[in-house]
Amino acid sequence: MRPNRVRECWAEGRPAISGWLSIGNSYSAEIVGMSGVDCVTIDLQHAMTDISDMISMLQAISATPATPFVRVPNTEPGIIMKALDAGSYGIICPLVNSVDDAQAVVHAASYPPAGGRSFGPSRGLLYGGPDYAQHADETIVRLAMIETREGLAAVEEICALDGIDGIFIGPNDLGLNLGKGTSADPTDPEVTGAIDHCLGAAKAAGKRAGLFCPSGAVARRRATEGFDFVVPNSDANLLKASLAAELSAAKST
Amino acid sequence: MRPNRVRECWAEGRPAISGWLSIGNSYSAEIVGMSGVDCVTIDLQHAMTDISDMISMLQAISATPATPFVRVPNTEPGIIMKALDAGSYGIICPLVNSVDDAQAVVHAASYPPAGGRSFGPSRGLLYGGPDYAQHADETIVRLAMIETREGLAAVEEICALDGIDGIFIGPNDLGLNLGKGTSADPTDPEVTGAIDHCLGAAKAAGKRAGLFCPSGAVARRRATEGFDFVVPNSDANLLKASLAAELSAAKST
Amino acid sequence: MRPNRVRECWAEGRPAISGWLSIGNSYSAEIVGMSGVDCVTIDLQHAMTDISDMISMLQAISATPATPFVRVPNTEPGIIMKALDAGSYGIICPLVNSVDDAQAVVHAASYPPAGGRSFGPSRGLLYGGPDYAQHADETIVRLAMIETREGLAAVEEICALDGIDGIFIGPNDLGLNLGKGTSADPTDPEVTGAIDHCLGAAKAAGKRAGLFCPSGAVARRRATEGFDFVVPNSDANLLKASLAAELSAAKST
Amino acid sequence: MRPNRVRECWAEGRPAISGWLSIGNSYSAEIVGMSGVDCVTIDLQHAMTDISDMISMLQAISATPATPFVRVPNTEPGIIMKALDAGSYGIICPLVNSVDDAQAVVHAASYPPAGGRSFGPSRGLLYGGPDYAQHADETIVRLAMIETREGLAAVEEICALDGIDGIFIGPNDLGLNLGKGTSADPTDPEVTGAIDHCLGAAKAAGKRAGLFCPSGAVARRRATEGFDFVVPNSDANLLKASLAAELSAAKST
Amino acid sequence: MRPNRVRECWAEGRPAISGWLSIGNSYSAEIVGMSGVDCVTIDLQHAMTDISDMISMLQAISATPATPFVRVPNTEPGIIMKALDAGSYGIICPLVNSVDDAQAVVHAASYPPAGGRSFGPSRGLLYGGPDYAQHADETIVRLAMIETREGLAAVEEICALDGIDGIFIGPNDLGLNLGKGTSADPTDPEVTGAIDHCLGAAKAAGKRAGLFCPSGAVARRRATEGFDFVVPNSDANLLKASLAAELSAAKST
Amino acid sequence: MRPNRVRECWAEGRPAISGWLSIGNSYSAEIVGMSGVDCVTIDLQHAMTDISDMISMLQAISATPATPFVRVPNTEPGIIMKALDAGSYGIICPLVNSVDDAQAVVHAASYPPAGGRSFGPSRGLLYGGPDYAQHADETIVRLAMIETREGLAAVEEICALDGIDGIFIGPNDLGLNLGKGTSADPTDPEVTGAIDHCLGAAKAAGKRAGLFCPSGAVARRRATEGFDFVVPNSDANLLKASLAAELSAAKST
Repeated sequence: MRPNRVRECWAEGRPAISGWLSIGNSYSAEIVGMSGVDCVTIDLQHAMTDISDMISMLQAISATPATPFVRVPNTEPGIIMKALDAGSYGIICPLVNSVDDAQAVVHAASYPPAGGRSFGPSRGLLYGGPDYAQHADETIVRLAMIETREGLAAVEEICALDGIDGIFIGPNDLGLNLGKGTSADPTDPEVTGAIDHCLGAAKAAGKRAGLFCPSGAVARRRATEGFDFVVPNSDANLLKASLAAELSAAKST
Repeated sequence: MRPNRVRECWAEGRPAISGWLSIGNSYSAEIVGMSGVDCVTIDLQHAMTDISDMISMLQAISATPATPFVRVPNTEPGIIMKALDAGSYGIICPLVNSVDDAQAVVHAASYPPAGGRSFGPSRGLLYGGPDYAQHADETIVRLAMIETREGLAAVEEICALDGIDGIFIGPNDLGLNLGKGTSADPTDPEVTGAIDHCLGAAKAAGKRAGLFCPSGAVARRRATEGFDFVVPNSDANLLKASLAAELSAAKST
Repeated sequence: MRPNRVRECWAEGRPAISGWLSIGNSYSAEIVGMSGVDCVTIDLQHAMTDISDMISMLQAISATPATPFVRVPNTEPGIIMKALDAGSYGIICPLVNSVDDAQAVVHAASYPPAGGRSFGPSRGLLYGGPDYAQHADETIVRLAMIETREGLAAVEEICALDGIDGIFIGPNDLGLNLGKGTSADPTDPEVTGAIDHCLGAAKAAGKRAGLFCPSGAVARRRATEGFDFVVPNSDANLLKASLAAELSAAKST
Repeated sequence: MRPNRVRECWAEGRPAISGWLSIGNSYSAEIVGMSGVDCVTIDLQHAMTDISDMISMLQAISATPATPFVRVPNTEPGIIMKALDAGSYGIICPLVNSVDDAQAVVHAASYPPAGGRSFGPSRGLLYGGPDYAQHADETIVRLAMIETREGLAAVEEICALDGIDGIFIGPNDLGLNLGKGTSADPTDPEVTGAIDHCLGAAKAAGKRAGLFCPSGAVARRRATEGFDFVVPNSDANLLKASLAAELSAAKST
Repeated sequence: MRPNRVRECWAEGRPAISGWLSIGNSYSAEIVGMSGVDCVTIDLQHAMTDISDMISMLQAISATPATPFVRVPNTEPGIIMKALDAGSYGIICPLVNSVDDAQAVVHAASYPPAGGRSFGPSRGLLYGGPDYAQHADETIVRLAMIETREGLAAVEEICALDGIDGIFIGPNDLGLNLGKGTSADPTDPEVTGAIDHCLGAAKAAGKRAGLFCPSGAVARRRATEGFDFVVPNSDANLLKASLAAELSAAKST
Repeated sequence: MRPNRVRECWAEGRPAISGWLSIGNSYSAEIVGMSGVDCVTIDLQHAMTDISDMISMLQAISATPATPFVRVPNTEPGIIMKALDAGSYGIICPLVNSVDDAQAVVHAASYPPAGGRSFGPSRGLLYGGPDYAQHADETIVRLAMIETREGLAAVEEICALDGIDGIFIGPNDLGLNLGKGTSADPTDPEVTGAIDHCLGAAKAAGKRAGLFCPSGAVARRRATEGFDFVVPNSDANLLKASLAAELSAAKST
């Protein structure tokens, strides 16, 4: 089975850097996959992207060196299984507020007897290779998003769960749920404290921690702090910022 | 009829700045349209984009302050009329190598008696307003691309043609056709001479000159030189460069 | 934030009139949005329409004066959040049979602390404006569909719920669930009594009431009765009826 | 081979009534196909529709009693052959200004030795049946649009051409080309004279005449005048008018 | 209402043979529908197919003699109702592990009072005919997939449920859940015993039994054993095997 | 630049075997690309496939070992350049009836000074690598289809043209144009003579010859005869035949 580059990074003691796809287009997916990232995450939750976009984006990413992940919209098992059957090597699941939610992710993303994933790995076979079924369970990465007070309260329990590889933090949602407003690089002590607490919980359990960052510089800093999976902003945000800078140059006098 | 912001810029003595869409996606089109550009050009020639993408991109751009243009793949009249019927307010036509080619563009992009555009402005009416048919001919902008030796030789004649609003230069193709290789901001004297010659020919004829630039800074410089329509790179290139910069930051030690 | 025209109608003491999109096409969506309606509702439940259609339809509606609503297929939070992130300003949720179902709608359609909507308003920002996050909760309209015996029994409780702006009645489903068969403009006393009861419950709670109508004339009558949100039939039904009338004229002797 | 209902109407001495699809959607195509029309014409010229829409619309129409036609964007042979391979039973070709243009249509729409249509009738076989190749040439209908002064001058010659089944008039374009402005039901004597002239030329040559009408009533009148193929407006126009009427009823006081 | 050919086969004492669509394309759907099968099942669970593909595939199948079924991804009512509204005449539901799961399928796939299906049979009317609503409940077929230990334990209870027409077995998943690995034509005695047990339970309850087979020969054998609904492999698998055979011939020396 | 496996086969003295995609779907494209073929040809002429399908199919093929070719619909330069920009490594052009037609193919498929291909190799760069522009001209394969009497008469001249790598024969069209009817493996002496003549002309000019075959066995035979590029039938035909065989087994008694 084709290896999961994110697991390879971790085995080598390096954090994995993931692109983040908010534009639901297979050509921009390919551009990001070719950019030097270790991983490309297709966002099915907040992006303007649906299942058929995801399939063509996964196909486009398959020819790049980057490993494809999918951020699913919720813990619904149908979409988790679809993303995996389509060849995703990682699941980032939002709104995991309890160990039961985390268990639902493990169940949907693992074959029996470890879980209840239904058998039919259509593109999994094409992307992963003919031995996909034997190695899928240990190749796929499962990250639970901690972004609410309930999730924070359960983070140790969630990290301890077999089959969960780690946690992923959405700083905007975490801040909002703590009543501190959104910030992609929070400075409020309650929010930064919560992030530190999550990182500590993951490490204590021998698990991984990832988060969404507003820039490569922040991603670098987070990696130094110990995060294992960092996202230097989304394609949509990068395009927006980059175009704003060029426009400002074009309009300067 | 909703005014053409590119013509408004020109009337105010300002160059128009256009975004350039190589990613065939309506969400990134909307992001670019909201960025502060005067115009957004959908590329149907080299981009990974087809007619149905163009239609949804034109719809998405309609809610932004930017005016939509389409760079068609060639002088074939069917696609020029389709872009206009779908609401495009400008046609940038490549491979105009003679005044006959330019005349073909005018013919396809003007209603009788000025031309032979067939009547049925479906989204033109929705975007432009109920008086679309009366004002379309003078609202729409027609730019002929000069990018070959034949085109250079005919540039005065092309600029003199009624209905042609000006020329547009693709520096890569121009350099390649002059045997100097591709460069988005050429320094070879033969290529820069050819660009200057085109700019002069346009100005002498009282017409406009535009070109594709590799950055906002170059766009600014070209505007200072007298260009009336400048493109500070494409969405795909901006995304590529911006991601490379963030990755480099993320990986720096 | 761009205002919600439905709320404006209500503030002015006028009922809002909504188009209804059963044809999953962005061009017909645009035609309806330009027709003079206050609102356009995209039907994701019974129409032949999916999420990617919804996105391009929302983009097309953005350039029209009408405010976009989405009738989601059920109370599943993923699709409610997706519709809002894509720029919908209203959620009409079917099969609300209890105050718990209504609470699920409020939870998915409100940011913390009022609810649990996850943060990432991609097109919301483009459609609504940069202050979207601050005003989304009070701008978005949430209507619970009452269409079953259980829903009828809970209608007072549902109307009393904070965050629910009102109810919406599907006369066909209501009649069917009361054992009276489907009718878009019911005359059966049990069904009309149930509709009156819902209208009364909404008004008593200071909330709004809407319903689907088979024509503009019925919509007018319903508005006179006190309904605040009326739908003068769907695009598919109007096309069907209008074509039948023209065909009959074409074939008459 | 499944018969062409348009030819059946003509054999029975009745005009064929065709729906007209400007909305590029397979569900609305199906609604129109089920409405009682003899034929459904997919517009690839002015409608917001491309080849992939055409294919799914042809598939949807296949299950209805109506025969599918395609109005192609121009005389380019690639798109004519594609429409036929996809199962269209008729070609309406715009901008036929000479007998050479008409000959190009016949050539692209007829197998050797009558023409040069390339062999590969993918959906033709599925729609038409296994004997498609033997009967396609005499089953398919080819209509040349007369809409310019040049076309008018050549109409007798065009009607006389073997393989051309008749002409089709777009009153808007014809009026515009005669300098009389657009009108879907012209009253200007030069335009009505031109229409009468075309009808006469077709009849004199033993060929058919069709035209686009703004309503069923006009279609009826045109059929009485001798037209063999009448279109009681497009789906987009019918939807627009029908919605306007319902809205007016909804808003009346 | 157009009859369900699967029910007709059963009434005539014959097993129904169903094609299986893993390729999400309306043209291949049409090819399979024309092949002589009684039924065509669109797979929404493991195939690379989403709702918009399903709609165009159902439209394409409508013009073929085969009856369309949909294998939904899970018991979620939204997708079951969507498949039915789009014209599917059968629901094959995976992961039915209890009589409650089976009841959820019946509820979503039956109109009140038998169930809670919401009213709005858009394409159901076009495919089935104007009397769709009266006959849908008894025309539609509902098959519950038995593929886990829990499902096996509840098979008698599931078969006894009113509204469930029978069961469907996925041999791969059943084997995997019994700890015997995947096999499309199992020989392990525990797995074959489980299949026999399911077949017996269905027959004892007067219900139907179906299963997925790796070939026509196995389908024939299964029909002889008493199975009522057999699938001679999927389009994707057939294409794969057939191409392998031709390639082997092409490469032989 | 990633090598062209077809050229590698030829360099090794082996014929290239190409899959043929008539189903416009990226998943079946991927299945065929993984099957062991050297090349996969996307048919844009007779298949139910358009440009946006082609793009996603090219992306899907990029992750397989097979090299992608495109059979374009005609000699129109826009579509040839689009296929190349999208990453196709070969152009098979139908209806080449003269050396001028062949020259048009070379012109559109070669950069200046050899031709007039416009510069903008979007996916070419992603698929081929950063040195795409330097090596594209000698990497891309250009095959001219000989299928008419005119083409036959010009075959020596066509084969002699610089930039044409060889010819490709569609036996059905060739037979039809010679008045012998269609046959995928012709036995009529005039047709077989014409095929032999083409093969000889190609070999005499040091060029390649390819043809479409109805099976792997015929492909093998043709390779033995000296053909350098053989197609063991299309995906659609293979699926049709394979399903027919399985159905026959399923129905046998």
